[in-house]
Amino acid sequence: MPQHPLDTFFSPKSIAIIGASRDDKKIPGMLLTFLRRNGFSGDIYPVNPSYDSIGDLRCYPSITAIGAPVDLAIVIIPARAVLGALQECAAAGAKNAIVISSGFAEEGGESAGIQAEIAQLAKRTGMRISGPNAEGFYNEPQRIAATFSPTVDVNPEAPRLLATPRRVGIIAQSGGIGFGIYNRAKAMGVAVSNVISTGNESDLAAGEFLDYMAQDANTDVILMFIEGIRDPEMFVSAARRAAEAGKPVIVTKVGRSGAGERAAASHTASMAGWTAAYDAVFAKYGFIVSNDLDEAVAIAAAFATAPLPRGDRVAIVTVSGGAGAWVADTLAAEGLQIPELSQTLQTQVRALIPSYGSPRNPVDITAQAVHSGGLQKVIELLEQSDDIDAIVVVVSLASETRIPVKRDEIKPLIDAQRKPILFFTYTLPSQFARTELAGSGIVAFSGIAALGRAVSRLVSRSRFALSPRAEAASPRLTLSESAVPERLSEHESKALLRDVGIAVPQESLVHDQAQLAAVLSGMDFPVVMKIQSRDIPHKSEAGGVRVNIRNADDAAAAFGDLIANASRFKPDAEIQGVLVGPMAQPGVEMIVGTVNDATFGPIVMAGLGGIATELFRDVVYRPAPVDEAEAAAMIGELKSVALLHGFRGAAKADTGALARLIAQMSELAFALKDRVSEIEINPVRVHEEGAGITIVDALIAGKAAAPG
Amino acid sequence: MPQHPLDTFFSPKSIAIIGASRDDKKIPGMLLTFLRRNGFSGDIYPVNPSYDSIGDLRCYPSITAIGAPVDLAIVIIPARAVLGALQECAAAGAKNAIVISSGFAEEGGESAGIQAEIAQLAKRTGMRISGPNAEGFYNEPQRIAATFSPTVDVNPEAPRLLATPRRVGIIAQSGGIGFGIYNRAKAMGVAVSNVISTGNESDLAAGEFLDYMAQDANTDVILMFIEGIRDPEMFVSAARRAAEAGKPVIVTKVGRSGAGERAAASHTASMAGWTAAYDAVFAKYGFIVSNDLDEAVAIAAAFATAPLPRGDRVAIVTVSGGAGAWVADTLAAEGLQIPELSQTLQTQVRALIPSYGSPRNPVDITAQAVHSGGLQKVIELLEQSDDIDAIVVVVSLASETRIPVKRDEIKPLIDAQRKPILFFTYTLPSQFARTELAGSGIVAFSGIAALGRAVSRLVSRSRFALSPRAEAASPRLTLSESAVPERLSEHESKALLRDVGIAVPQESLVHDQAQLAAVLSGMDFPVVMKIQSRDIPHKSEAGGVRVNIRNADDAAAAFGDLIANASRFKPDAEIQGVLVGPMAQPGVEMIVGTVNDATFGPIVMAGLGGIATELFRDVVYRPAPVDEAEAAAMIGELKSVALLHGFRGAAKADTGALARLIAQMSELAFALKDRVSEIEINPVRVHEEGAGITIVDALIAGKAAAPG
Repeated sequence: MPQHPLDTFFSPKSIAIIGASRDDKKIPGMLLTFLRRNGFSGDIYPVNPSYDSIGDLRCYPSITAIGAPVDLAIVIIPARAVLGALQECAAAGAKNAIVISSGFAEEGGESAGIQAEIAQLAKRTGMRISGPNAEGFYNEPQRIAATFSPTVDVNPEAPRLLATPRRVGIIAQSGGIGFGIYNRAKAMGVAVSNVISTGNESDLAAGEFLDYMAQDANTDVILMFIEGIRDPEMFVSAARRAAEAGKPVIVTKVGRSGAGERAAASHTASMAGWTAAYDAVFAKYGFIVSNDLDEAVAIAAAFATAPLPRGDRVAIVTVSGGAGAWVADTLAAEGLQIPELSQTLQTQVRALIPSYGSPRNPVDITAQAVHSGGLQKVIELLEQSDDIDAIVVVVSLASETRIPVKRDEIKPLIDAQRKPILFFTYTLPSQFARTELAGSGIVAFSGIAALGRAVSRLVSRSRFALSPRAEAASPRLTLSESAVPERLSEHESKALLRDVGIAVPQESLVHDQAQLAAVLSGMDFPVVMKIQSRDIPHKSEAGGVRVNIRNADDAAAAFGDLIANASRFKPDAEIQGVLVGPMAQPGVEMIVGTVNDATFGPIVMAGLGGIATELFRDVVYRPAPVDEAEAAAMIGELKSVALLHGFRGAAKADTGALARLIAQMSELAFALKDRVSEIEINPVRVHEEGAGITIVDALIAGKAAAPG
Repeated sequence: MPQHPLDTFFSPKSIAIIGASRDDKKIPGMLLTFLRRNGFSGDIYPVNPSYDSIGDLRCYPSITAIGAPVDLAIVIIPARAVLGALQECAAAGAKNAIVISSGFAEEGGESAGIQAEIAQLAKRTGMRISGPNAEGFYNEPQRIAATFSPTVDVNPEAPRLLATPRRVGIIAQSGGIGFGIYNRAKAMGVAVSNVISTGNESDLAAGEFLDYMAQDANTDVILMFIEGIRDPEMFVSAARRAAEAGKPVIVTKVGRSGAGERAAASHTASMAGWTAAYDAVFAKYGFIVSNDLDEAVAIAAAFATAPLPRGDRVAIVTVSGGAGAWVADTLAAEGLQIPELSQTLQTQVRALIPSYGSPRNPVDITAQAVHSGGLQKVIELLEQSDDIDAIVVVVSLASETRIPVKRDEIKPLIDAQRKPILFFTYTLPSQFARTELAGSGIVAFSGIAALGRAVSRLVSRSRFALSPRAEAASPRLTLSESAVPERLSEHESKALLRDVGIAVPQESLVHDQAQLAAVLSGMDFPVVMKIQSRDIPHKSEAGGVRVNIRNADDAAAAFGDLIANASRFKPDAEIQGVLVGPMAQPGVEMIVGTVNDATFGPIVMAGLGGIATELFRDVVYRPAPVDEAEAAAMIGELKSVALLHGFRGAAKADTGALARLIAQMSELAFALKDRVSEIEINPVRVHEEGAGITIVDALIAGKAAAPG
């Protein structure tokens, strides 16, 4: 087994508690009590100069006085004393430390400065530090409770409800939520590997903990609660590691609302906001986003119990017609199939249920068939059928004395399951039922929407394919090394695109009527004319666009109008001229853009153009660069993809050319990330298959101040 | 107190159990046991010729032998004997009956025929009958358990957890779900009036039970589970009664998926489907639709505890920054405001919390402030502030020994609350915490998405206004009494609209080139030409539309093309000619339609035209007729309403004219419901304010066979 730097953090052989206390009503005392009550089998060294002993443990005046190796020091002392204590820990050779104490970056000012020194100490000495302001961790298989969370305050005699064969690791940037998830997972019978609360992340941050869980043999599924990633490079590489290891990551990201959205002039940027960058990264690595606590735990429970399905055809077996219909609606709303069973299967099922049951799908076996053992037999039939990819069993598990399946019959079936078999109860499950089912490796799901989402995520996970590493895509685009001005006009933006080899329409910039006449003499009508100014990014709003101009007279009039409108709209705007070009061929109007995110760098975006982008938010994001295959997958995620596939008898659109453009833009944004902050192609017209695309309008924002 | 026909059903003074049994493992025995164990205080008459007594109760050979009035007869005997028993009940003067026995309409064939006879018996004799195939009811305030559901199998000594001052009535077309909801409500501490499982509804159906709950003094909030309404007129009038009584109705409607959608040629109809009609009725009467079991109960719990808020500004008070952020995101995603607190309020809050807390919003008071009693004080401050309309308190209620508020301090605050104060726990609440909080009238919410939905529904309910009774709107539209053919062409449809006084464009139907030339001589170019045939409802797909025709030559060519295309598209199509008309002025393209629903009659629909209708389902439905105010409200519910309100600097559109058209179409559909089955105006162009609308295309389907 290869070693991970955090092995000694999560599986310490010795723990020192700096600031240990005899008072188990206070945090330091609680932590010691929980550590011992959970049965930590290594050495415990309380450190507190005020005591000689705490209970039957010797208490040391300092970590140096221990005179034995310390894998983990837990620091719970007033904030002002923390830095000194950590220096002493490092000097004594402690491998890791957790700072529980509060009052650092979250207070600001001088206290934030101390946190920066803690971070430097970790870098300098190599001692890894979690926190400050952390709630610690709980290693469940080894029962190491390095936390004061009351959720690990267990009765050591009470048996732990364990229903899942696989274990879930929990990483949370909030102690309350992390151990709240643990508390809920435990109640459901979900086995947990580690719960870690990451605190202020002075040194160890969420990305590194993800890296640990991605390789940890005890962790099969990962649940994350994220406020903001502080180690994005580590996070992204850990995300890939988890994906390569086939470990699903269920993630909640908060901070989606409020004043966090960045102000930016282009639509791409204002809609991207900063949470879109997170969602882009999550999508790339197949993370499963969940915004509800019970739903996140339910999804984790499903992954921890069930194999991945081979398809999306679900059979529902129910004892209640109404509950079966509700589950069917819920699964269908998630895009899953609830196919009617084959005649053969229906005949077999019919033999096991009363005449007033239904063998179709949902399979309503009725309460009576439960009494006669029909439930197991129907599940077995469906498990063996190639027509079904997953089974949802809908029962009532409220009884404190009975469950609707027999353990000796259902357990072998669950142990050998080749497809998901999930149990949903429309009453709240009794502790008896939870315990009985757990013995067979079954979790009782009690949320109908959460169950539907869980089944849907099993199916989508089975279809997830990790895109090749970004570095593998060689940027084929180059650009001279000059700085890019803060905001380019359309014709300047198109010139930049042309420079890097992307086809844009043949257009001419004219400055006066004479030049206009000369240009028109070499063009076919109708033409389009657009005002050009770095100061007018949205030309339509300024009355700066004229389309379908059919002759030279109309063009001359339009020229005057466009100049006059622009002056009226923004009197101090610097006008570069009027761009004259051909009308674009018809096609589906899409938008393609990029924006540099402060955390994750360039993000590429694609969506349906026009009103849909703003009204219906039908846009998809990925971290740049993407290759054409990943770009094609992005297009496939749009609700409006039907439009590109030949809507209402229209010709199929050239999605290949669109995917190529998305990939090119993503490579451009990636290659020029230090010089270009935003690109927006809006709209690009996608013509019919084989006819390519036309970049109708483009807007590029650079990072340098615009010259004069 | 006025009487309701179902008073003796839900509050019987005497109950006969036809088919009573001594075996309390079987349904008849269980029912008798539950009835007695819950402490029914009236007379119980077991009826079974095999026994003289059951326990200490005298058992009668027949209902006639009782010789005393029977308010409710519960029938639990084999299906073939049910009709005879019911006849005997009616003859003996029983006021109501519940048939628990199964094997009627759900079996089909002869058994379904018996159910029809049961229905006739009820009509003939006036004895009201619930079921067959019902699970009975539970009247909680009077503890009448007329059901065999194990959820009423209580320990009579165990105190019932009651946290809500108001009671929830539950009506379910599925016994499993009805009592499953009861089971979950009970666990949360939600007080319940009656739970009724309606079974096959041979006589008493869900609408009539809704009518009862709407006037029942014990019922404040109503929860419904619907598979399909069998008494739509009663249901609609009861829905109005509930709305007028100010009782919120939370509803789950299943059967939304699957093969239930009606096949119809027009887009209106195929998108309406039959569940849209339900949603239209729900929307009209302010019903709150919920598709999740826990969410439905959470919404009911919120209505049963909290007053309606005056606005949408929510304050979040939290002991965990992460949990506070999550709740804030969830509420914001529901469209609620989480405003930063005023400086005055922040100063007041700051005095109550540690320096590392936050007084903004979410208000992070930290765990420390809980110990010092700061939680109550902050809630009190927010309760008194006019800047806040609702308060969500985010805590951990996992402890079996402590809760974060003191009962004697919080109870007076909750008792006097003028705005919702809801408690959310990110850990699962302990039974201790539930019980302690219930004593102060507080429900602990533990689902984050469900909580968000509940707060949002309180706010939307506070904005709900019941539209006046449909009968009040006098149909101003008339039409000659002739039948309307099964499918009209565009020009026939427009002629019908013109006949009833709705403005349509001046257009001419031409049959040959000579006629075309004559028509064009009186028109300005450009023109539009469209093929007309009852057999080609979707003209564009058939190459049957030419726009922007600029001269007579182009028009002549277009005429030939249109005829040729139509023949190619559908060789046997009967061509009526080509419609020639002016190009419509620019405007926002909308769709307005009506369709006759089998259950609820004519439904009117409005939505954004073009691709949005199909891709994004941005449509709104209401039962017809609607007045202009209700039509305006429909427009306001569209996601695309921004387009009509002057999108990106465009002029505001004439929404008044659009609302008028919606109202007119709804009245037309209502007045002609026996002759017209569908109307689709697609598109109607809405011009700028004051400039009205243009009906670009129209399609009407009648109920008579098309003549020759």
